[in-house]
Amino acid sequence: MTQLENQSADLPAVLERLGLKAREGYSVGITGPPGSGKSTLVDKLTGRAREAGQTVGIIAVDPTSHLTGGALLGDRVRMMGHSHDAGVFVRSMAARRTLGGLAAATRDVGRLLAAAGFDLTIIETVGVGQSELDIVKTADSVVVVAVPGLGDSVQTLKAGLLEVADLFVVNKADRPGADRTVAELRAMQGLVPGAEGWLAPIVQTVATENQGIEDLWQALARHREFLESSGERARRRERRLEAEVFDLVQRKLQERLQERLQSDGELANLLEAAKRGALDPHAAAARIVAQLDTPAD
Amino acid sequence: MTQLENQSADLPAVLERLGLKAREGYSVGITGPPGSGKSTLVDKLTGRAREAGQTVGIIAVDPTSHLTGGALLGDRVRMMGHSHDAGVFVRSMAARRTLGGLAAATRDVGRLLAAAGFDLTIIETVGVGQSELDIVKTADSVVVVAVPGLGDSVQTLKAGLLEVADLFVVNKADRPGADRTVAELRAMQGLVPGAEGWLAPIVQTVATENQGIEDLWQALARHREFLESSGERARRRERRLEAEVFDLVQRKLQERLQERLQSDGELANLLEAAKRGALDPHAAAARIVAQLDTPAD
Repeated sequence: MTQLENQSADLPAVLERLGLKAREGYSVGITGPPGSGKSTLVDKLTGRAREAGQTVGIIAVDPTSHLTGGALLGDRVRMMGHSHDAGVFVRSMAARRTLGGLAAATRDVGRLLAAAGFDLTIIETVGVGQSELDIVKTADSVVVVAVPGLGDSVQTLKAGLLEVADLFVVNKADRPGADRTVAELRAMQGLVPGAEGWLAPIVQTVATENQGIEDLWQALARHREFLESSGERARRRERRLEAEVFDLVQRKLQERLQERLQSDGELANLLEAAKRGALDPHAAAARIVAQLDTPAD
Repeated sequence: MTQLENQSADLPAVLERLGLKAREGYSVGITGPPGSGKSTLVDKLTGRAREAGQTVGIIAVDPTSHLTGGALLGDRVRMMGHSHDAGVFVRSMAARRTLGGLAAATRDVGRLLAAAGFDLTIIETVGVGQSELDIVKTADSVVVVAVPGLGDSVQTLKAGLLEVADLFVVNKADRPGADRTVAELRAMQGLVPGAEGWLAPIVQTVATENQGIEDLWQALARHREFLESSGERARRRERRLEAEVFDLVQRKLQERLQERLQSDGELANLLEAAKRGALDPHAAAARIVAQLDTPAD
């Protein structure tokens, strides 16, 4: 799994070595602003899945952490309720500096967990930016968590998040303003096109008290059923695979560019001139692309 | 400017058409979690700069908004204090779907504002993700805004943000817990390497009351002086130009891939096979890259 994350091995090779076959699992992505209680939700949802006899793989991703993932440690400690349960596997992933690498690694680790037989994979991401969107979109069902009274709570859920949400959770719903948050979400839903035939339900929870978890579990089951019966799951799968291929091609092209820069003096000169300010960045980029078309020495 | 944002024109061409010459300005990037009062800070900082006789260009960027930038409208309305001031120019930019396009567009619009003679450019981004980091790093001085009592306030400022911060602002410092937030920031500073010879100061503000704005203004002046005298500004400029060239090359390669997919049936077949699940995404990507090396028909 570490090899996958470091992109040092391809998934098919790893699966073969482990004697595993690719298998379609079911995955739930959970995202929302910091402090919205995502980790506790994941914890309780895991408990509910275990009651149903399902094994659960959890991928906790922090796209903004460049350090050793320390920011997640606190979250993971809260997952202690399942730390001795062999039916639950937790993997924390912090950001690498490689562009787009985190979404790719999340996809591959998710596939590996599915192939290893985990019934449910939960992908939890910290934050609300574009990287988090890219990661959470690798899941079959996307849960967006809001919380009453966190600044302009709904305004912090930017349009990008609203678009990808299959379900909303208003967590900490025992706080004042929960009904207002629900009303605001409903109002904003009208502005954003969702999947045809599916209006994202809004579930109120108090995760710390295990309240509303059964509602969330049932809503997820309904969404999974919708995905299958409507053909939406197949359509999403196609879109995801297409995006993944583009992403992988781009990363390979980028690697080759880096290699070529080491060996091709003309490319290095162009880059140097741009760094000195002697050549406009746009002009340098155009000439580098042209140079890439000539065979390397 | 709209042409620049849409990447339909290169900056040198636009500048030439406008009769402008490239000119180095000074830019401040401001980022922090939603609800931390960034817009009010920008507003007050703009007022202070105007008192000093400086003209101010403001670029407000929302990387997560895929809609028409509606989420920013509320923020921009708060900027009304300067709406009739010809020395202040505000440009809102919402996310485009093009990968990395927003940081590139921010850089170009920033250069255009500098060339147009604005003394100070303020780049404000909403949120705390990787895209926001990429955008805010295009500025000379980076201000990271925290706020007391917003969840685990400092935990929401992930390591990536701590690394790029030249100054911290603890805004809404009249709230309980401000001193604790300052202490937490100081503790975390020890963990993160900053620029040599510069320890990011922590400024407490109550932006709505104009408190601490003078301290922030003075701290920014000191950082600008440090950038010049230490040679750090030149080093950063080189790093930024290098990153920009890589970014532009990559975007050009991506455009060419898209064009090639339209015209090359073999490429389209490989992509189709991956979408159907008949070909593993990694294998498809490898074969597409190989196919790109053969001349197009």
